[in-house]
Amino acid sequence: MGGVRRIAVLGSTGSIGRQALDVIRAFPDQLKVVALTGSKNLKLLEGQLREFQPKMFCSSVKPDVDYAGEFLSAEEIASHPEVDFVIVATAGKSGLSPTLAALQAGKTVALASKEVLVMAGEIIVREASLRKAQILPIDSEHSAIWQCLRGEESKPQRLLLTASGGPFYRYSQSQLAEVTPEQALQHPVWRMGKKVTIDSATLMNKGLEVIEAHWLFSVSFDSIEIVIHPQSIVHSMVEFADGSLKAQLSWPDMRLPIQYALSYPRRWSNSELPRLDWHKINSLSFEAVDYDKFPCLKLAVEAGKSGGTYPAVLCAADEVAVELFLRRRIGFTDIAKIVQETLEQHRNIVKPSLEEILAADDWARECAARLSLGHRKKPERRGNPGIKR
Amino acid sequence: MGGVRRIAVLGSTGSIGRQALDVIRAFPDQLKVVALTGSKNLKLLEGQLREFQPKMFCSSVKPDVDYAGEFLSAEEIASHPEVDFVIVATAGKSGLSPTLAALQAGKTVALASKEVLVMAGEIIVREASLRKAQILPIDSEHSAIWQCLRGEESKPQRLLLTASGGPFYRYSQSQLAEVTPEQALQHPVWRMGKKVTIDSATLMNKGLEVIEAHWLFSVSFDSIEIVIHPQSIVHSMVEFADGSLKAQLSWPDMRLPIQYALSYPRRWSNSELPRLDWHKINSLSFEAVDYDKFPCLKLAVEAGKSGGTYPAVLCAADEVAVELFLRRRIGFTDIAKIVQETLEQHRNIVKPSLEEILAADDWARECAARLSLGHRKKPERRGNPGIKR
Repeated sequence: MGGVRRIAVLGSTGSIGRQALDVIRAFPDQLKVVALTGSKNLKLLEGQLREFQPKMFCSSVKPDVDYAGEFLSAEEIASHPEVDFVIVATAGKSGLSPTLAALQAGKTVALASKEVLVMAGEIIVREASLRKAQILPIDSEHSAIWQCLRGEESKPQRLLLTASGGPFYRYSQSQLAEVTPEQALQHPVWRMGKKVTIDSATLMNKGLEVIEAHWLFSVSFDSIEIVIHPQSIVHSMVEFADGSLKAQLSWPDMRLPIQYALSYPRRWSNSELPRLDWHKINSLSFEAVDYDKFPCLKLAVEAGKSGGTYPAVLCAADEVAVELFLRRRIGFTDIAKIVQETLEQHRNIVKPSLEEILAADDWARECAARLSLGHRKKPERRGNPGIKR
Repeated sequence: MGGVRRIAVLGSTGSIGRQALDVIRAFPDQLKVVALTGSKNLKLLEGQLREFQPKMFCSSVKPDVDYAGEFLSAEEIASHPEVDFVIVATAGKSGLSPTLAALQAGKTVALASKEVLVMAGEIIVREASLRKAQILPIDSEHSAIWQCLRGEESKPQRLLLTASGGPFYRYSQSQLAEVTPEQALQHPVWRMGKKVTIDSATLMNKGLEVIEAHWLFSVSFDSIEIVIHPQSIVHSMVEFADGSLKAQLSWPDMRLPIQYALSYPRRWSNSELPRLDWHKINSLSFEAVDYDKFPCLKLAVEAGKSGGTYPAVLCAADEVAVELFLRRRIGFTDIAKIVQETLEQHRNIVKPSLEEILAADDWARECAARLSLGHRKKPERRGNPGIKR
């Protein structure tokens, strides 16, 4: 692809969207924002519109702003003839239909929203292959694997997804039960949105990444292994048939995988990105993951293996449970319980259509909300303890 | 390249040669030995001839053996029309002229002998480029870099050569002065020939690898860094313009880089090769190299930077000094002193011809032998101390 890349950033007000704009800002001769879509943070979106002056924009509520650009739907933007490259960084399932629209129009999609491939991997991958459209990963782990596979002719033997383990990897079961939202929102390495941060603490996020890796790289679940690596320097590894492994390393900074997708097949020098200093790294440690301590991880991998509508149900139930945890209605360890009970009650549909996937999502949200009543915490005393409530 | 690769193994009785035959033995449908050359170990060569039945062979002394194959020179073998692929695993400078002959005949050369590129990098690389002949590295470090560069369009920003540090990395200067040949021959990780093992202990070997990497990957000396990594799992790394690094990892086993060169661009499954088990690796450590403690490393990098005939003089003086150390005539720390003094006495020739390089080698051997007289140790008392000598 020569010339300037015309980019639509879906979810530009989120954590990944903002970092994508940072990268785009650094390469004005190569990258041009032609569309932005945000959800609720209208003030931030307005600022971005003023700065980047895109032709098109979209938000869940039409902002009361005097802006000359066209207000279109996310699907219209994703498939628009003046767009070459679509960054999908929206939350949850909202990326699903724009991703499909972009692929149907033959656009290159840089995917940060895990739910897209987790919920509808088979449909998405089939569409991309049919239209010869590329899906480029933006997650640090999948970008690492993609970088390691570059130029290799033979299929990987094994993918080794690294995991920091999150803030509670050394906690006991009873300590885990007492974890508060404040504690869970303090990730030791990455600054991310709230939902992803909690998913990182339960290791649900790593489970979703396993499913995503399965679809992105056509590798069986049995060939994907998780290795705990607390320093988050090695972002993932690939083992080949001859036993040789390749790893991708960098200081943890999401702007690198974002830029790699935007510059691919080239690599661009960017003084804003941190460099690894070997004199500051003493050692990189690795250990096997404890599936029993983090049931969300096991649930995700099993849902991925079972396929059908199970992964969509997993995502939806998790989203409900995480929201309830953040609102202090349930405990940290209840998240896995609610997800598990929802999965147990689900009647799977094999090779589902997009409509069936979205229906399973609706069902799972309702089911998880209902099941959560059985896990409700007693209301906490909050606020000034001196005031009678 | 389709079909069976017809291979000449130059130096088949040495450590790398024997391991190359191990790999070839495992892939009878892909690889065929058509020529073997050995030096002094005629008994082993005879056994190899009987097993592999090559059409051609060569040795420094013509063996008194009833073998039907043709006895040719190493240069004739390397450039023979029935040879596709030449493994150069001979000791010292003896690989120089066969490598050149192979490249002139357009053969693919898999290079294990460091001296070839160290002594005559400019000539060798020019010839390969002129004839569009490939040079594939067999050293574990260079194979790692080659694997990491695979498929990348942009030039590397930095090469990070890892070094185990050898057996004496934590020794003090006074401890180093007392090192015996027996101690120096015990490498903590790799089983190799005597010369390479001593060069690993002085870190001269790492210095030669820096020069080799400079020629193989057209990277400036200032962009090649050495990182001490005692576990020898990460075999080297490459840093790209965007700050992303790729590393190649495996259990230390020379058969892997040998097989990678032989199978390239494919990768073959080989149950004989060990697999990395993450459950057995706790941590990988890295630290900056101490140039002051290991002067051979600094001398090599400086000789590489100066270019001309300096690197050939470095190699020759080192070969003489290591031999004298193994014969207990000089101490371990005298190796660097003799190499340094020889380099200081040398009058460099810029852009030397092959003849000038070989003349510099002759001069350096004589000079180093002469200089070593000033470092001779007092004869040790050896043997049964009860017997009067």
